[in-house]
Amino acid sequence: MAVTLLVCSTCRAGETVEDGAPVAGERLARALLQAEPPEAVTIRRVECLSACSQGCSVALSAPGRWSYVYGRLTEGDVDDILAGAAAYARAPDGVVPWRERPAIFRKQSLARIPPIGETP
Amino acid sequence: MAVTLLVCSTCRAGETVEDGAPVAGERLARALLQAEPPEAVTIRRVECLSACSQGCSVALSAPGRWSYVYGRLTEGDVDDILAGAAAYARAPDGVVPWRERPAIFRKQSLARIPPIGETP
Repeated sequence: MAVTLLVCSTCRAGETVEDGAPVAGERLARALLQAEPPEAVTIRRVECLSACSQGCSVALSAPGRWSYVYGRLTEGDVDDILAGAAAYARAPDGVVPWRERPAIFRKQSLARIPPIGETP
Repeated sequence: MAVTLLVCSTCRAGETVEDGAPVAGERLARALLQAEPPEAVTIRRVECLSACSQGCSVALSAPGRWSYVYGRLTEGDVDDILAGAAAYARAPDGVVPWRERPAIFRKQSLARIPPIGETP
């Protein structure tokens, strides 16, 4: 299923940034966008996921699915983020079995939100 | 617009709970469900918003809107949570002006997610 990987490209992740230098979130966004995207995954920048104290952060979402937000990420996590996004896209309902999630997704979850507009 | 206030009713919020006693999230859910719901707001329990280290937590969502997750909440926050949910329901696009958000929503945001399935 077509899913979206959102990257908070405005995150400073607590760093002091020199004038004109890309912030940590922008560096992560560039690294993700330069990589080969997994099948059925669209990567896009978003301004602020409001997880500023736990940045850098990304979110995975798709219509009719649980959304997930992960934090405390860096450019070093690009391969794992993409592997986790691919597993989310492949899972019929978006719920990836626990053991198949990358460690950063198991340990650095900030929140998840149920499918929107559905009744329980 | 009809919006949903989701309450993580399984959150232990780091407490040790006696057998049979309701966990912190369940106590918050009961307190919210016993109150008068704001117009156009449906309150419902959800099992785990995956914000366990920042519980108790709630989320606000509706089709076509940004979703928001807030944490570190207790039963003492019920009035503010409901006021914030009412403001979210009233705002035409769900984005409530900063100053009109309850302090707990300004200071205890865990994450937000853009409208799902929309292109930028």
